Amino acid sequence: MRSRIRALKDSFEKKELDGYIVANESNMLYFTGAIGAAGLWAPLEGENVLYVYGVNYESVKTTAKNCQVELMKRNEDPFKKIAEHIKPLKLKRIGFDDLNVVYYVKMRKALKETRLRPLSKLVQEIRMIKDPTEVDSIKKAAELTDAGIEAAVDAIEPGVREYEVAAEIEYAMRKMGSEGVAFDTQVASGTRSAFPHGGCTDRKIGKGEFIVLDLGAKYNNYRADVSRTFIVGKPSPKQKRIYDVVLEAQRKAFETMRAGVKARDVDAAARKTIEKAGFGKYFVHGLGHGVGLDIHEAPSLNPEGKETLKAGNVVTDEPGIYIVDYGGVRIEDTVLVHKDKAERLTKAACELMIE
Amino acid sequence: MRSRIRALKDSFEKKELDGYIVANESNMLYFTGAIGAAGLWAPLEGENVLYVYGVNYESVKTTAKNCQVELMKRNEDPFKKIAEHIKPLKLKRIGFDDLNVVYYVKMRKALKETRLRPLSKLVQEIRMIKDPTEVDSIKKAAELTDAGIEAAVDAIEPGVREYEVAAEIEYAMRKMGSEGVAFDTQVASGTRSAFPHGGCTDRKIGKGEFIVLDLGAKYNNYRADVSRTFIVGKPSPKQKRIYDVVLEAQRKAFETMRAGVKARDVDAAARKTIEKAGFGKYFVHGLGHGVGLDIHEAPSLNPEGKETLKAGNVVTDEPGIYIVDYGGVRIEDTVLVHKDKAERLTKAACELMIE
Repeated sequence: MRSRIRALKDSFEKKELDGYIVANESNMLYFTGAIGAAGLWAPLEGENVLYVYGVNYESVKTTAKNCQVELMKRNEDPFKKIAEHIKPLKLKRIGFDDLNVVYYVKMRKALKETRLRPLSKLVQEIRMIKDPTEVDSIKKAAELTDAGIEAAVDAIEPGVREYEVAAEIEYAMRKMGSEGVAFDTQVASGTRSAFPHGGCTDRKIGKGEFIVLDLGAKYNNYRADVSRTFIVGKPSPKQKRIYDVVLEAQRKAFETMRAGVKARDVDAAARKTIEKAGFGKYFVHGLGHGVGLDIHEAPSLNPEGKETLKAGNVVTDEPGIYIVDYGGVRIEDTVLVHKDKAERLTKAACELMIE
Repeated sequence: MRSRIRALKDSFEKKELDGYIVANESNMLYFTGAIGAAGLWAPLEGENVLYVYGVNYESVKTTAKNCQVELMKRNEDPFKKIAEHIKPLKLKRIGFDDLNVVYYVKMRKALKETRLRPLSKLVQEIRMIKDPTEVDSIKKAAELTDAGIEAAVDAIEPGVREYEVAAEIEYAMRKMGSEGVAFDTQVASGTRSAFPHGGCTDRKIGKGEFIVLDLGAKYNNYRADVSRTFIVGKPSPKQKRIYDVVLEAQRKAFETMRAGVKARDVDAAARKTIEKAGFGKYFVHGLGHGVGLDIHEAPSLNPEGKETLKAGNVVTDEPGIYIVDYGGVRIEDTVLVHKDKAERLTKAACELMIE
């Protein structure tokens, strides 16, 4: 964890920074291992300071690494405290990840001689490359996620409500040690499967309709993300066709993934497959996103993506076809990028039919 | 829901606003009923416009009320779109809830003749007063939350792990129709109970130690929040004493709650009880917070709180005593404020001992 904050400071040079303010909770967790702090000051020189309110002071003190922990009063503004701390240093330029506008405006007033630069990318670029400890946690989260899919397959039958399936998914993952869910579980059936973020409702699942599941477990604060699509009974030829196109697109994208490949080219591999099959206009989102402490993080895999994949990236590969008033299909895995190949971390079988 | 956006526009006059930008997801849901939009423009005069990316366009179109829904391209910036939309209107002054700094800086450049004011309070003040539909949803969420406590009481026994108890809590709530959880479930046992936000771990629960549960269900996107503290077996006199002090403090605060009372005075009712008993320094947080679409919203009940309670506020009443290396107790209910009294929405029994 010390190497992470070292990497951040190494990135100061190209931006000519004298220090960096971390306000984002996941970033604070990444650098210090602690949850529940209000702000972190990371100077180029001198000690890192983590500011914490009383409610979380004792727990943060027992977990925080690489920093001094400072207790704040209940109504103190952490960024005002940081401003007071750094004002005498007369720094020229400091970066930050994502300050609220109100704090930002106050800090600008308090530090008139210092330039404040929104530079969330500095941290994103470090977090994008997962270290072995992080990969282990995501692998474990992916294992628990696969168990969620298994529980769903057992639970799905005609007449069962979407939220009842979600209950079984989440229970199975929790019992095996998942820290809650990585994001809101989706069980979208019938025409609702055409909504990429369909959540789940009390709708009863019927025979012969698409059911899109999107779910994830959390382990050591790291997340995984999987989607599978099912049908109870026999699919129609059109349903089978759509499913096969998405599956093929997912495989094509997976096969292009390795360090050095442009994110947009991975997206294109899936998108072209779907376009050639005549469903291009129904693939209404990007191919994927990074996964780690957050469920959506860098890099983004979409037609506009400017990033190049690097070994240690963990990303989703999730093409979909969504036809309004008909239904949708999405197949998604969480994938680890290696130097010369990619590795699926979620491994649940892709089988459309549930008997 | 039309009356909500009307109330927002009625508040423009005192701030001399010509319009308001909503960037916060809960606020967008509050005003339009839709989830998954990227930004809402609410002008004093003219039509409200909700900006949505393709991935959520179809679902937002079927749910959004009181606004025109505009599709954005994948790489478009919603706030740049809003800026382009309003630039020709030469507005003098517009408010917003919580723009990211990067968007804020861009908008300032794009709208040089318009003053941009961070005014999240305008919406908070409206959302603080729950209408009958909202109260019904929170009541239902509270019912499901109580079922979570019941499931926990059934599950807790020596040797059970904290996360296994969480699994039973969440499963029970989900099966009854909860939309996932209102926030991360806490099951903090032994000395971990002294951490107010203790989460849950794989620690095995032992006899004779405090177990603090903090949990909530979600219904129609509205949340509830409850804490109970248990001990398997017979408490020591000191444990019993601490528990009774917290219970008394919780009751004292509850009895002061009604419209017209200052939030800080409600906090003081609990705090004085705990101070008199000699545990003042162990009550390390404010008494409570508003609950609704978000788990933490206005008003805040703490010694610095400036708000006055109003009929329709839904707040938590949650004093606690946390003794490091010993253990902690918190007792919490979600409470609805009426004109002349308060009403507990969570009703799970407060019984320290589990046999």
